[in-house]
Amino acid sequence: MNYPNGRKEVQKHFPAKNKPTSSGYGNRGMSLEDDIMATNDYYLQAKMAVVHKKPTPVQIVNVDYPKRSAAVIKEAYFKQASTTDFNGVYRGLYVDFEAKETRNKNSFPLSNIHQHQIDHMKAVLQHGGVCFLIIKFTPLEEIYFLEGTKLFTFWDDQFQGGRKSIPYSYICEEGHLIPFHFQARVNYASVLDKLYF
Amino acid sequence: MNYPNGRKEVQKHFPAKNKPTSSGYGNRGMSLEDDIMATNDYYLQAKMAVVHKKPTPVQIVNVDYPKRSAAVIKEAYFKQASTTDFNGVYRGLYVDFEAKETRNKNSFPLSNIHQHQIDHMKAVLQHGGVCFLIIKFTPLEEIYFLEGTKLFTFWDDQFQGGRKSIPYSYICEEGHLIPFHFQARVNYASVLDKLYF
Repeated sequence: MNYPNGRKEVQKHFPAKNKPTSSGYGNRGMSLEDDIMATNDYYLQAKMAVVHKKPTPVQIVNVDYPKRSAAVIKEAYFKQASTTDFNGVYRGLYVDFEAKETRNKNSFPLSNIHQHQIDHMKAVLQHGGVCFLIIKFTPLEEIYFLEGTKLFTFWDDQFQGGRKSIPYSYICEEGHLIPFHFQARVNYASVLDKLYF
Repeated sequence: MNYPNGRKEVQKHFPAKNKPTSSGYGNRGMSLEDDIMATNDYYLQAKMAVVHKKPTPVQIVNVDYPKRSAAVIKEAYFKQASTTDFNGVYRGLYVDFEAKETRNKNSFPLSNIHQHQIDHMKAVLQHGGVCFLIIKFTPLEEIYFLEGTKLFTFWDDQFQGGRKSIPYSYICEEGHLIPFHFQARVNYASVLDKLYF
């Protein structure tokens, strides 16, 4: 059997990108991504926001069309995403964000982010959208909201001899701790309310 | 050989949904979707907008991880999308739309749209986003922009004994002909300018 946990489970545990991130995902139950998707479902049901995760981009090479049943993709490859993972609309704002977990306690490694994601976020900002990063420090069980502009500063500095990570202390002070809410487990909308409304 | 035209070509000609639409895609060169993606690329380069097509959602069942090469998806299935195909930000507006071609000349069949897409578009509208349909009447080579609210009227009416399609004449009068632009081949932003700015 190739899918002992059922199809849904198998899908869940794929890395969103071609290669697993250095941070990795442990077996701590719900991943950050799962928690954000549950939050988005709650926001949708509660008529608070419409935010979705984009599907994992896949390059399809070969498909079989059997008679009387669904098409089966027989050969495909993971593609690099050209944008961030989540976007949507909240109180009239276009919102766009990436979510990352790290096992580090002292800093968030910039290697978790790609140049094209930075380019995308900068473009979004230029057009009046809001972009940010949701960072989970898994050993601390703390989740932070970091505005795009603050990420960009560190990102750009690394090419001028700056450090390759964002210190935890900076994220604590300049980011925003995302509160846990029973239904909105990663209640990022509360930070958006504070910052933009 | 399973991919005589190269991988990119193979990907292009898959239906976005499980089953091919009744309208189908002919061999007229660029499809509406291709033209809109080229338009979005132009908007991005020209710093006019950030709009992307969402990847085709795929349910992955079995993946092979060969040594020293990329992971190969060996079994996967097309999933129904829960949203529309395109979204992004234009002049601070959250924009969200679906694009459909029809071979009909006299009307646009509502069977091209799904209930969950209507639900999604209604939710987007409630949160201050803009949603619309881009309809191409391929025999006429005409492309129209139809606001979500006008689509909803016909959609909801069909369950009250109303017609199952939107007349071409209605779309001509109440929709907006999308002009062709050398670089922005489906220049929908010009309609957004007219309607919202």
